[in-house]
Amino acid sequence: MVTKVKPGEVAKRYRAEVRSGVEGLDRTLKLVGFLSDSSGTPSHTYADYTRRGCEDVGIDFELRTVPRLELEAAVREANVDPELHGILIYYPIFGTGQDAYLKDLIDRRKDVEGLNSFWIRRLYKNVRYVNDDPCQKSILPCTPLAIMKMLDACGVMDKSQAKPLAGKVITVFNRSEVVGRPLASMMSNDGARVYSFDVDGPILFEGNSLSELEIKRGDALAESDVVITGVPSKAFDCVKASEINDSTVCLNFATIRNFEKAVKEKARIYVPRVGPVTVAMCLRNTLRLYRNFHSGSGVDIKEVNH
Amino acid sequence: MVTKVKPGEVAKRYRAEVRSGVEGLDRTLKLVGFLSDSSGTPSHTYADYTRRGCEDVGIDFELRTVPRLELEAAVREANVDPELHGILIYYPIFGTGQDAYLKDLIDRRKDVEGLNSFWIRRLYKNVRYVNDDPCQKSILPCTPLAIMKMLDACGVMDKSQAKPLAGKVITVFNRSEVVGRPLASMMSNDGARVYSFDVDGPILFEGNSLSELEIKRGDALAESDVVITGVPSKAFDCVKASEINDSTVCLNFATIRNFEKAVKEKARIYVPRVGPVTVAMCLRNTLRLYRNFHSGSGVDIKEVNH
Repeated sequence: MVTKVKPGEVAKRYRAEVRSGVEGLDRTLKLVGFLSDSSGTPSHTYADYTRRGCEDVGIDFELRTVPRLELEAAVREANVDPELHGILIYYPIFGTGQDAYLKDLIDRRKDVEGLNSFWIRRLYKNVRYVNDDPCQKSILPCTPLAIMKMLDACGVMDKSQAKPLAGKVITVFNRSEVVGRPLASMMSNDGARVYSFDVDGPILFEGNSLSELEIKRGDALAESDVVITGVPSKAFDCVKASEINDSTVCLNFATIRNFEKAVKEKARIYVPRVGPVTVAMCLRNTLRLYRNFHSGSGVDIKEVNH
Repeated sequence: MVTKVKPGEVAKRYRAEVRSGVEGLDRTLKLVGFLSDSSGTPSHTYADYTRRGCEDVGIDFELRTVPRLELEAAVREANVDPELHGILIYYPIFGTGQDAYLKDLIDRRKDVEGLNSFWIRRLYKNVRYVNDDPCQKSILPCTPLAIMKMLDACGVMDKSQAKPLAGKVITVFNRSEVVGRPLASMMSNDGARVYSFDVDGPILFEGNSLSELEIKRGDALAESDVVITGVPSKAFDCVKASEINDSTVCLNFATIRNFEKAVKEKARIYVPRVGPVTVAMCLRNTLRLYRNFHSGSGVDIKEVNH
């Protein structure tokens, strides 16, 4: 039974697949990343990881830093630039609803992070292909997808089943539009029973249905095979070793600690961060978008009501 | 010079235009409004005003109240229902980023509130027509549009100019994605110099450009021909009579007081609410969407990169 999994190694395996795919192409892919002049350290770090990941797989990466009020114009320009195959913005830019506007501004065919609501709507409807063509796979958002790949590497999934997470109970602390909610949906689409906690109260994701649920944190944790945290606030009451089982897989994607230190010893596996895998998923999405839309054999997305 | 303007009367004039347009159609338009079972009083009130407005102009209105977790499925169903020409959701539903997701879920061709990012992107690019056809006008979001119509009724605009707000200085307290930011853009597109205040600091909207600006509230107010407030918090320091001039037009769109009482006497015009005009704009958008997309002579929206 797996007891230790390094995100760096998981990322390396996925980057190898991307490298191999990129080598087979007739042109060099180019990805642009945007920072604003008020972007903080976590954003610069993520940009740095992106650059290194791109170098590793053979994708050109260009970082553009613009005043935040000029970012919209810069993105619109990147959208129509035929030399660019992928666009990514390092959030937060405004830290307000304006960031959600920016996510939808990126042309969906260059949306390597998969946060454009076009892709997100498909995710919630469990639509896995573009235009229902199995050769044209949908884009999934990077961080949730990275977490799924980590769960796979941790032995949580049973790939022989149609629903690889059937029978698994998972608690997630975060229901944001960018990670927690899509993640809960992806896991329940794969068969898991998911307890989603957020300031707004617990919601159960199971099969195709969602229900408001009165369940205590302690009861959810005691039942869980996997516990995932992504709470950006120091006010969060860190998950304690006493709340989990020794067979539990614990994973954190917040930039701060969400599990108390003793969890590292008690949990079957403890994953403190997923960053390198997130970047690998972003590179994988870049290649997929290229094959879907930019490679000449690519197809336009029909105006389907998803 | 105008010193008193009643939103109810302005709304009545716009509803008369809609009624006349509706009478000329070959079918009855139908609008559906969604509440959740946790919706509060302001939402129910707005739903009520919508119903009365629809009755007044001859549009069928149906109110559907659904558990909030079932709203997405209900909207997807309404999107593809050929009997429905317009869809509106009374926010807040979740009061989180999930509401922004819902805004983009409504089919843009039925989006009577004009909050789908497709329409908002056009607004920021000052694109006024669908597919560049002057007979197919874009949809503008209801509350900002209602405020523009009130400013017109207050004599602030000079319709003989290409830019009816040229030379005007306007301060807005609110830079939300749903009202304050589109409003500031619309007013600067029409020639005004707009000081936009929010918790994130002041931004100047002028012509095609935006700039971070260090300007004090008092200086912006002293210079302003129009002061518009939409701060939903009781912590907001209400605009005082001493801060404005007796030629200033003051308008509030928040559900709470944002001006101190003495402003009502001092300002040239004081508009405490715009609700009835917002509903009238919603009805007007319903008719416009019908003519653009549902009337048989309607056109499909090309996939243009706006």
